[in-house]
Amino acid sequence: MEILDLKESMMRKAIIEAEKAFEQEEVPIGCIIIHNNKIIGKGYNQTELMQDVTAHAEILAITAASLNLNSKYLNDCDMYVTVEPCVMCLGAIKHSRISKLFIGTLEPKTGYSRFINMADFHPEMIVESGTLQAECKHLMQSFFQEKRNKS
Amino acid sequence: MEILDLKESMMRKAIIEAEKAFEQEEVPIGCIIIHNNKIIGKGYNQTELMQDVTAHAEILAITAASLNLNSKYLNDCDMYVTVEPCVMCLGAIKHSRISKLFIGTLEPKTGYSRFINMADFHPEMIVESGTLQAECKHLMQSFFQEKRNKS
Repeated sequence: MEILDLKESMMRKAIIEAEKAFEQEEVPIGCIIIHNNKIIGKGYNQTELMQDVTAHAEILAITAASLNLNSKYLNDCDMYVTVEPCVMCLGAIKHSRISKLFIGTLEPKTGYSRFINMADFHPEMIVESGTLQAECKHLMQSFFQEKRNKS
Repeated sequence: MEILDLKESMMRKAIIEAEKAFEQEEVPIGCIIIHNNKIIGKGYNQTELMQDVTAHAEILAITAASLNLNSKYLNDCDMYVTVEPCVMCLGAIKHSRISKLFIGTLEPKTGYSRFINMADFHPEMIVESGTLQAECKHLMQSFFQEKRNKS
């Protein structure tokens, strides 16, 4: 599989997770973690269902991947997440030693890059944004539009 | 109870949590969350036991407090933590809307303040460090000293 196809294919799996959040009236963010091109952890935002601010897609995916590998470190694993992680999740990503982070769409208001200088914080990780950006962004915009229409 | 006594008394409860971590060969950091002077959540670092980098004392305490209050927001709650939180935990603390953060001892290498400008990130929260600092620091130093002696 071409690298571009692989990236799109993996981000599509993260979007499927985000769609589950959307259906459950959660902010639609989804995440998968892969190792040797196999999904070893996935998650979608469940802060409302769990009434727990720590239940972000990335945190749930990291916990799932660690359980799967029986290791707290996820070296040589890649994360695909539909929306730019917040500061909490970036901290978790660093702790987990994930190698590469693929972001669907940036989130200038709440994303980590507003507050964190990556070159200081975690220079080893490769970060790339923009894979299936339009779809990831559209999901977020539709969610907040629907929410505004209801209120 | 005098405010100073209250703070010391609460930090001592956090130290008791940290000591549980120490006994289990985890980095000895403990945390409690209080609401109306009552403990509603507590936790100690369990990253080794759980093999999960997200299992920091503060994250576990926030999850416990939210479960206890049946609310993802912890307004008017105070956190006491023996060691300066990392970036991940500071993100979770912000999300949870905790009002006041009392830190035992600062952690210049891994603490949030090395990477985050609090005035930008979360200016509303009151942060105070130094309650029972010597005890909190001693616990950490003893742990790493023991670890070095073993290796």
